[in-house]
Amino acid sequence: MIPRDHPRYYSLMTRERLARCAKKGIVSFGGLAAHGRGEAFDYLLGEKTTKSAFLAQQTAAALLMAAHHPVISVNGNSAALAAHEIAALQRSSGALVEVNLFHRTKKRIGSIERLLQDAGVDVFSGEAERLLPLSHDRAWCRRNGIFSSDVVLVPLEDGDRCEALVSMGKKVIAIDLNPLSRTARAATLTIVDELTRAVPNITRACNELSQKDRDRLTVSFDNNYLLTDAIREMTARLSHALD
Amino acid sequence: MIPRDHPRYYSLMTRERLARCAKKGIVSFGGLAAHGRGEAFDYLLGEKTTKSAFLAQQTAAALLMAAHHPVISVNGNSAALAAHEIAALQRSSGALVEVNLFHRTKKRIGSIERLLQDAGVDVFSGEAERLLPLSHDRAWCRRNGIFSSDVVLVPLEDGDRCEALVSMGKKVIAIDLNPLSRTARAATLTIVDELTRAVPNITRACNELSQKDRDRLTVSFDNNYLLTDAIREMTARLSHALD
Repeated sequence: MIPRDHPRYYSLMTRERLARCAKKGIVSFGGLAAHGRGEAFDYLLGEKTTKSAFLAQQTAAALLMAAHHPVISVNGNSAALAAHEIAALQRSSGALVEVNLFHRTKKRIGSIERLLQDAGVDVFSGEAERLLPLSHDRAWCRRNGIFSSDVVLVPLEDGDRCEALVSMGKKVIAIDLNPLSRTARAATLTIVDELTRAVPNITRACNELSQKDRDRLTVSFDNNYLLTDAIREMTARLSHALD
Repeated sequence: MIPRDHPRYYSLMTRERLARCAKKGIVSFGGLAAHGRGEAFDYLLGEKTTKSAFLAQQTAAALLMAAHHPVISVNGNSAALAAHEIAALQRSSGALVEVNLFHRTKKRIGSIERLLQDAGVDVFSGEAERLLPLSHDRAWCRRNGIFSSDVVLVPLEDGDRCEALVSMGKKVIAIDLNPLSRTARAATLTIVDELTRAVPNITRACNELSQKDRDRLTVSFDNNYLLTDAIREMTARLSHALD
C-alpha cells in the first residue's frame, strides 16, 4: 500500500498498476524499467502536453485518416496503460490494432490480446511470420497487418523496430517521451508526450477530421522542429531549477 | 535473450539482472521503474562520473571517516546492483550495513541480507522498531543501527525517509541520479552519479584517508553547488542535442 500522503502518490499508483500487469505477464520486467525512463522525461516536460506535442497529435490524426491501411502496433506497456484509449482511437481512425512484443511468447500475446478485447478493441490476430529485417523476435508481424500497412502508430517502440519499419517505406508515428531516443529520431512523426495524454488527443482530432473529405487531405510537417521544441522545453525546465 | 547487436545491450543486460532479482523478490516492481528513471538521468549525465560528483564522493569518504557511528542503508535495488561494492566500502569505512526497505516483508529482508552476506557484507540485523517519524513501513529501523547513527549513506533513497533522517539531525549522504528529486535536495550531501560508479570511488577515497588521523578531519562543502553543477551538466547535454 502506498500511503496517500506520499507526494508522488499518482505516479507510484501508476507503477503499481504496471506491477499488477507484470504479475499477470502482460508487462515485461524490462517494460517496467522502460516506464521509469519515460517518467523521468515526462517530469522534465512538466507532465503536460506541450504546444508542439499537440501539433504532432493533430498531424498524427491527419496521417492516420489519410492512410490506406493504418495499423496501431501495441506492446505490453501500451496495453496496460491505455487499452481503453486505444479502443477509442481505433473506432475514430478505423486502424487495425496488432500486438507486437519485444519479449514474445504465445501466452503473453494471448494475455495482451484478451486485455485489449476486454477494453473494446477489435484485435487483428491471425498467423504471424518473420517479416521485418531484424534479428530477434522483434522481426515477427502479420502479413495483412503491419507488413502491408502504409502508416503505423507505434507507442513506446524499440529503436531497431522503428528504423526497420521506416526502411520498409512506411510512415511511422512514434509516441516517445525521450526526444533523444533512436525511435524518436528515426520515426516519420514523433509525439513527445505521455501515452494516456497523447492517444485521446489524436482520437479527438480524428473525430474532427472525419467530417471532411479524406481524399483531399494533404499532410506536411517538420519532425525536426517537433523534436527540437521538445528538447527546448526540457532544457528550459532544467535550467529553471538553477534559478 | 537480448541480441548482442542491440545498441543498448549493456543497459538492457543490467535491466535483465534486476529482473532476475525481481523474480527472487529482492527487487520490487516499483524498484524496476525507479531504476528506469535513474537510467534516463544517467543518459543526460553522459553515463560518466562528473568532476563535481567525484568531489562529492571524496567528501562522502571524509564524512564517513569522521563519523562516530556511520551506517550504510541498503535497499533491494542497491543490493542487486552493488553488493560487492558495498562490501568493499564497509571494509574501508567501518560502517554498519543495515537493510531498509520501502516494501518491507520479513522474507524480502531475509533474501537481501543473504545476498549481501554472500558478497562479503557483515550485515547488521537484530530487531527492528518503528523509530522514524513517518507513516508506512518506511518508519522501521534498528535502535543501534540507523536510529543511533550520526552519518548515514543512503543509495537510491525515498524522499520522505531522507527528509526524516535529516530532521533527526543526521548527516545524510544520498546517491541519486536525479538532482531535482526531494532526496537530492533534502540530503546533507548529494552524489549525482550511478551507484556502481559512485561506491568504488568513495571506497578508494576512504582508503586514502584512513592513513591520516581521523580526529583532525574537518569536512566542509556546498551541496547547492554540487546539485547546480549536475543540473548544468544535464542542461548542457540536452542543449548540445539541438546543435
